[in-house]
Amino acid sequence: MSAMIDFARKVLAAQPANTLVGAELTQFEPGRATLELPIRPHHLQQHGVVHGGLVSFMADNALTFAGGSVLGDVMTLEFKINYMRPAKGERLIARARVTGSGRTTAVCHCDLYALEAGAEKHCATAQGTIFKLEGKGG
Amino acid sequence: MSAMIDFARKVLAAQPANTLVGAELTQFEPGRATLELPIRPHHLQQHGVVHGGLVSFMADNALTFAGGSVLGDVMTLEFKINYMRPAKGERLIARARVTGSGRTTAVCHCDLYALEAGAEKHCATAQGTIFKLEGKGG
Amino acid sequence: MSAMIDFARKVLAAQPANTLVGAELTQFEPGRATLELPIRPHHLQQHGVVHGGLVSFMADNALTFAGGSVLGDVMTLEFKINYMRPAKGERLIARARVTGSGRTTAVCHCDLYALEAGAEKHCATAQGTIFKLEGKGG
Amino acid sequence: MSAMIDFARKVLAAQPANTLVGAELTQFEPGRATLELPIRPHHLQQHGVVHGGLVSFMADNALTFAGGSVLGDVMTLEFKINYMRPAKGERLIARARVTGSGRTTAVCHCDLYALEAGAEKHCATAQGTIFKLEGKGG
Repeated sequence: MSAMIDFARKVLAAQPANTLVGAELTQFEPGRATLELPIRPHHLQQHGVVHGGLVSFMADNALTFAGGSVLGDVMTLEFKINYMRPAKGERLIARARVTGSGRTTAVCHCDLYALEAGAEKHCATAQGTIFKLEGKGG
Repeated sequence: MSAMIDFARKVLAAQPANTLVGAELTQFEPGRATLELPIRPHHLQQHGVVHGGLVSFMADNALTFAGGSVLGDVMTLEFKINYMRPAKGERLIARARVTGSGRTTAVCHCDLYALEAGAEKHCATAQGTIFKLEGKGG
Repeated sequence: MSAMIDFARKVLAAQPANTLVGAELTQFEPGRATLELPIRPHHLQQHGVVHGGLVSFMADNALTFAGGSVLGDVMTLEFKINYMRPAKGERLIARARVTGSGRTTAVCHCDLYALEAGAEKHCATAQGTIFKLEGKGG
Repeated sequence: MSAMIDFARKVLAAQPANTLVGAELTQFEPGRATLELPIRPHHLQQHGVVHGGLVSFMADNALTFAGGSVLGDVMTLEFKINYMRPAKGERLIARARVTGSGRTTAVCHCDLYALEAGAEKHCATAQGTIFKLEGKGG
């Protein structure tokens, strides 16, 4: 399993956009992936909470990694997110899981929590479809 | 109308997360908003196209500005995005419009295009709900 | 609690569309609602499984009842459904729950299962927003 | 084109669930499909408007037919619907179109209108993904 998360972290590290944002992969196993964002001032919007667009960035990423944990090389076809509470505090944690999967697609859910003063608050929830990219000679 | 877009640009400029990502507001009028992202290497994922999470960031933003153009101070309740084609080229353009609105909510759509070598390609499409924040003493 | 489900069943019985389709409310408590459809030939599509549109009908209903269990008189603002497997067998079961709620909205999830030969199979999953209707003098 | 709509109407007629609900296909051409429901008392909910679950039934159907108009034999992977206004009057009209399509999937939109006293009102809007079923020996 350690090899598995190491591989997934290399994928994440190979994404310049993720370096820009700063998410960290803290769990990656068959059917589950967790991404965490240490919240910094440059992640906020004008009211001092994490920008919703970055919450969706985290959801998209976590859903894709969860789907990839069972399907291999994948792309996100679509997802939907409901925002429930502003995200503020020390970390934004995106926990994604595979709800159902077939040969080419996986339906995944992701719940996002803000860790503030040691307590997690449920900030958003997302649901999406991950699609397996067919191998191209390798 | 010039005053209207100036005000919206100040809102955008007050969002540190947007400074991080680098989106520009190029249209803002009642019922419509357009955000554009000059594509830079730090916006890409490992296959050399714009990271899907940043496409969703742009969609979320444009939907919110479109809803705000008719409702005032708003938050995004939820949205859904379908990715149709990898985004690559010079700019990512997110054009959002209000499809229907009431006293407290607006349903908005956003279409996202990549401008590459002078041609626009339709990359993603999104639909969401924007909610009016009630005034708090002003 | 018995009074609560009795009231909800009266609401369901007052919906002619539901009489047409034939769903039954089997659970209704704060934060949860379950609707079941005894599958009949007139619920199918051309391939002999429950019509997807009726699966969405069941999801919409169950989400609304779940939201209503915490908010009172409500309407569904929006929802999204992923179909995962054809629904066939004796019953279609839609289990909905409140994932988060505030003063005026609730975010709910619904999982739909087909009961076939005594085993439940996960057919679809949905996520939506329920909105409280403000009282109008009664 | 007449042969095309005739074929699609046979598909619709082969769906018992649709006979139960009573939708009619009034347009079917490459990239577009329109379904109409003559509103009857048994389509309503307790407040005298078309049951939201049937509005979603119509959206699901119209999206599927639109996708099928370019992909052939299809299934709906997922869709999302926003309700904007209660549907009442003589007819519920679901107009769906293909927004983008590839070899195996199509992203479609559907707008739903209620025809009341000669005027159309925009009641709901939906977005979904249609997936091509691979041929099995034919």
